[in-house]
Amino acid sequence: MAKVQQKVTVTFLGGVGEIGKNMTAIECDGDMIIVDCGVAFANEDSPGIDAIIPDITYVKQNFKKLRGIVLTHGHEDHIGAIPYYTNELKNTPVYGTALTIGLLKRKLERNAKKCNLNVVSAGDTVTLGKIKVEFIKVVHSMAGACALLITTSAGKVFVTGDFKMDNTPIDGKKTDVQRIAEAGAKGVLLMLGESTNVERKGSSTSEMVVGQSLENIFLANQKKRLVIACFASSNYRVQQVLTLAHKYHRKVVLAGKSMKGIVEVASSCGELHVPKGIIVDGVGKLLPHETLILATGSQGEPLSALKMMSKGEFNKINIGPDDIVVLSSTPIPGNEKSVYDVINDLFRKGADVIYDSMNDIHVSGHAYEEELKLMLSLVHPQYFMPVHGEYRHQYKHAQIAKALGVNSKNIVIPNIGESYSVTPKGIRHHSNVCAGKIYVDGVVLEDGESLINDRRSLAEYGMLIVLAAVDLERGVVVGDVDVVARGFNLTDEVEKSIRSAVIEGVNSVDLDKGDIDAYARCVKKSVRKLFYRDRQFPIIIPVIVKD
Amino acid sequence: MAKVQQKVTVTFLGGVGEIGKNMTAIECDGDMIIVDCGVAFANEDSPGIDAIIPDITYVKQNFKKLRGIVLTHGHEDHIGAIPYYTNELKNTPVYGTALTIGLLKRKLERNAKKCNLNVVSAGDTVTLGKIKVEFIKVVHSMAGACALLITTSAGKVFVTGDFKMDNTPIDGKKTDVQRIAEAGAKGVLLMLGESTNVERKGSSTSEMVVGQSLENIFLANQKKRLVIACFASSNYRVQQVLTLAHKYHRKVVLAGKSMKGIVEVASSCGELHVPKGIIVDGVGKLLPHETLILATGSQGEPLSALKMMSKGEFNKINIGPDDIVVLSSTPIPGNEKSVYDVINDLFRKGADVIYDSMNDIHVSGHAYEEELKLMLSLVHPQYFMPVHGEYRHQYKHAQIAKALGVNSKNIVIPNIGESYSVTPKGIRHHSNVCAGKIYVDGVVLEDGESLINDRRSLAEYGMLIVLAAVDLERGVVVGDVDVVARGFNLTDEVEKSIRSAVIEGVNSVDLDKGDIDAYARCVKKSVRKLFYRDRQFPIIIPVIVKD
Repeated sequence: MAKVQQKVTVTFLGGVGEIGKNMTAIECDGDMIIVDCGVAFANEDSPGIDAIIPDITYVKQNFKKLRGIVLTHGHEDHIGAIPYYTNELKNTPVYGTALTIGLLKRKLERNAKKCNLNVVSAGDTVTLGKIKVEFIKVVHSMAGACALLITTSAGKVFVTGDFKMDNTPIDGKKTDVQRIAEAGAKGVLLMLGESTNVERKGSSTSEMVVGQSLENIFLANQKKRLVIACFASSNYRVQQVLTLAHKYHRKVVLAGKSMKGIVEVASSCGELHVPKGIIVDGVGKLLPHETLILATGSQGEPLSALKMMSKGEFNKINIGPDDIVVLSSTPIPGNEKSVYDVINDLFRKGADVIYDSMNDIHVSGHAYEEELKLMLSLVHPQYFMPVHGEYRHQYKHAQIAKALGVNSKNIVIPNIGESYSVTPKGIRHHSNVCAGKIYVDGVVLEDGESLINDRRSLAEYGMLIVLAAVDLERGVVVGDVDVVARGFNLTDEVEKSIRSAVIEGVNSVDLDKGDIDAYARCVKKSVRKLFYRDRQFPIIIPVIVKD
Repeated sequence: MAKVQQKVTVTFLGGVGEIGKNMTAIECDGDMIIVDCGVAFANEDSPGIDAIIPDITYVKQNFKKLRGIVLTHGHEDHIGAIPYYTNELKNTPVYGTALTIGLLKRKLERNAKKCNLNVVSAGDTVTLGKIKVEFIKVVHSMAGACALLITTSAGKVFVTGDFKMDNTPIDGKKTDVQRIAEAGAKGVLLMLGESTNVERKGSSTSEMVVGQSLENIFLANQKKRLVIACFASSNYRVQQVLTLAHKYHRKVVLAGKSMKGIVEVASSCGELHVPKGIIVDGVGKLLPHETLILATGSQGEPLSALKMMSKGEFNKINIGPDDIVVLSSTPIPGNEKSVYDVINDLFRKGADVIYDSMNDIHVSGHAYEEELKLMLSLVHPQYFMPVHGEYRHQYKHAQIAKALGVNSKNIVIPNIGESYSVTPKGIRHHSNVCAGKIYVDGVVLEDGESLINDRRSLAEYGMLIVLAAVDLERGVVVGDVDVVARGFNLTDEVEKSIRSAVIEGVNSVDLDKGDIDAYARCVKKSVRKLFYRDRQFPIIIPVIVKD
C-alpha cells in the first residue's frame, strides 16, 4: 500500500491584502502552529479605535490541535494582539528571541505570569507536536528578527518574516544567507515572502549610513541642543544615537514612556549597550551642547513626547532656536498630516528641523525589489505566496517570483480568511474560515463593525434627535416637537420640515396605535425621507414619550 | 514739503501656512484688489465637509475700496470660492485668461450671468483704480496660468502664482522669463513666491516627458484597452493623451462629468485641440485595441469614474484582464489611502495598473528648488514673502531667499489674517484681520467650527442620550432611565453606572427644582464625570421630560 501523502495547510488570519495584524496558522498531521499574532493600526476609516486585531475564531475552533505560537520579531504588527487573547490562548507556549519575548512581556504587564513564554536564539529549533520550527537570523529594523523554517511531514515551509539584506548591520549579525541557501538547496515546498517594499527598486540602504548622517548632524551643530525622534523599538537606531552622544559628550534624556520602557527591555536582554552614566532624568541645568533628547513621536502620535514638545506642553523641555530636531523616520502612509503638523509647529517655535529622507536619516527595515529577488533565489521554493502587503504589493511580488522561474501555477496571492492545502503534487484553495477585523476601543468590541459604521455616519452627516409626546389613544402628537442636532446644520427651514415630517410619521401609524415603538419607527422613516434627495444620511433618533 | 511716501498693504486671507484657498488683498492709495479666491479641500479633520473657503469679512468691510479680482489660473484652490460669494462680491470685475474664466463660468453655472467676468491674455495690463496689473505668462499644469506684476504708487508687487520653468511645454508657450527679468531689472518692491515644491531638489521634469512615457505604454500594449486617469483640468496631459490616441487609432471615451465638461471648456477656448471624430459616447462595440478611456478619479475620489470602475459600478465599462490602467498622477498628501484602495481593486479585477512616479507618467506643475532660485534671481525683490505652503515650506523658501542675497530683515513669513504694509523704507506687520476657515457642507455653514468639533467628537467617542422623567415638585426621577448609544460601546455595566449617575444628577438639583433645564445640566455633568478618568468624551444629550 502506498504511503498517504500528507498535506500542509496554511490559513491566513491576517497580514494579507492589508498592512498589519499578521497571523498565519500552519497545520500538518493534526498539529497546528501559529506564526505571529499582531495588531493593525486604526486609520480615518475607524475613528476613535485603538487597534484592530485578528479574528481568532478559527484558532478557538481548532484549539485542541494548537501546539505553539512562534513569533518572527517583536513589532506590534507581529506580537501586539497576544495581550488581548491571553484567556483564549490559555497556556499555549509562545516562542521568540530575547527581545521579542522581552517586548511581549512589557505589553502583557501582569498577565505575563499567566503566559507560557519561551526565549529561543537564532539557530534554535523547537518541536511543536510533529512540526519543527527553526529560527534563522534575518536583519530588520530591530534585533532578534528571524525567518522560520518549518518542517512538516508534507515538506518545508519557509516564512521570511520582516527582513532586509544588510551587509553592515550595527551589531554585525547579518541575515543568515548561508543557512537560507542550504535550506533552499535541500528543498522548500512553500515560501511565504514579505512584500512591504516590493515597489522600491534596487536594495535598501544599510542602517550604518544613518549613523554617518547623524554624526554629520552632531558635528555641524556642536553648540545646539539635539532632539532626535525615532521608534523606541528601533534598537539599532537608538544604539547609534547613544554611541554618538557618548562620543560627543552629551547626556541623554529619554522622553516618552515607551522610549524609557523599551530602552530598558532592549538593554536588559543585551540588544542595547547603554554607556554608563549617559542617561539622565531630565535636562536639569545641562547646557544645550551637553544635551541630547531621545524622544518618541516620530510619527506625530497624539500624546507622544515630540508632539507635546511641538505644542509647548512637554514637561520641562521647551523647544526654541537652540534646538535641532531630527525626525529619524519616514511617515507611515496615512500619518503624513500628523507628522507635518508637528514639523510645522517645531519650525514655528524657532527650531531647525531635519526630516526628509534625502538627508539619509532613516532607512527602511524591509527588503527592496533586488533583495526580494535574492531571497527568492536562495530559497527557490516549489510554491510561493506573497504576504504582508496590500494586494498591489502581493501582485508585484508574484510577478517577480514568476520572472525568477517559479511556475506561475504554483504562485498564489492569498486573501484573508483563505485556507490552502499544499503537497508536492499541488496547491489547493481548501476552504474559507472566519477571519477579519476585531476592533479594540479600550476593550475588545463585540460588534465593532456596526459601532464604526455609526461613528462614520455621525462624522460624515451628524445626527438628529426628534422628541415628541404622543397621545397613544388618538395617535396624534401633543404639544411641540423638539429637534436636537449635533454635527448637522439645522437651519430654521430644515427644522420646520422635520417637525412636519414627525407629525406626518405619527399620523401614519395605523394599526398599532397603542404601540409606542411603532411611532418611533414611522417617525424615523418619515424624517429620513427628507434627506434622501440630497444624499445626506444623518443618524436619526426618535424619542417618543407617552403623553 | 516732501512728498508723502505711499505704502502698499498686503493682507493674507488664505493660502499661507496651509495648502489651498489662496486669497490675498493688495491695497494702495485707497484702492484694493483681490488676487485669487480659492477653496481648500476637507480632510479627516473636517469630516463630511465639501470644501473650506476663506473668510471674506475683511473684504466686505472694505468693499468700497475693491476695484477688482485678478485670477492667476483656473485651479480650484485659486478660483473655487467665488461661486459661494457671488452675492457679497456683487458686480466686482473679475479678470483672468480664457481658460481660467471658462472654468469659472462652468462652476458658476446660472450665476455666471450675474458676474462681471473679463477675459485677458498674457501680456495684458488691466487698470483697477490707481493699481495696474500685468498678466505675465508662466507654465503650470494647466494653460492660461499667469504671474502678476502689480504696479502701485508705492512700488511693484510681483506675485508668482503657481508656476514651473518648463522649457519644452506642449504648446510651446514658455514661462516669460524675458519679461520677468525686465520687471526685476526695473525694481520689484515685494515678491510673493509660491512654495509648494521647495522641498524637492533640482528642477521639475517637463510635461513632454510624460508624453514619451505614455507613448511607450501605447506601444507596449497594442492589443489591450487603455484606461488613463488624470485631472480633467490638466489640459496638457489631456492633450497628449488625445494626440496619442489619434496617432494610434484609438477612439476616446470620456468618463466622468468633469472630464466631459472641462474638455469642452478647454477646447472651446482654444487650449485643447480635439482631433475630429475621436471622441465617442461609449465603448459600444469597440475592440480593446481601438479604445482609450480617459477618466477622472486619479485621486481615488469617492464618486469618480475610476473609483466606480474599480468597484465594478461604472456604467457599461467593466475592468478586466484586457485593461491597462494608468494613473497619470501622484496622490495628493492625505489621499494615499483612497488612491491605493482603487489600485488594489483594479489589480483584483485582473487589470494591469501603472501608477508610480518611477514610470514618469506624471510630472508636477510646481517649481522645484532650483526653479524657485531662478525666479528669485530674475525678480530679485527688495522684500520677499513665501506663500502657498505649510509653514515648513515657507520656512525653507525663506532660507533660499536669504541664501540668494535677500536681506533677512526683508523676508517675512506671513500667517493667515496678517496684514503688512510695505514701502521702500521698510516692512511692518500692520494689523490682524478677521480671516480663517468657512466650512461648506452643501451650504456655507455659519458656525462650521463647532459643527466640525461635534462631528470629530462623535467620530472619536460616539454619543449617549439619557432619557428620564422627573417629578419637578419632588425633584426625583420617576420610572426607568433610558440610555441610547451610537458609536459608543455600551456594556451592561456602563449602562448601570449611567443610570445611577442620572439619578445622582437629578438629586443634585437643589434650588431650581422647578426648572427642567437645571436637571438637564446636572445630569449631563454627572454622566460626563463617569468617563473623565478614561479620557473618553462622548457627546452626552440629556432628555428630561416632566412626569
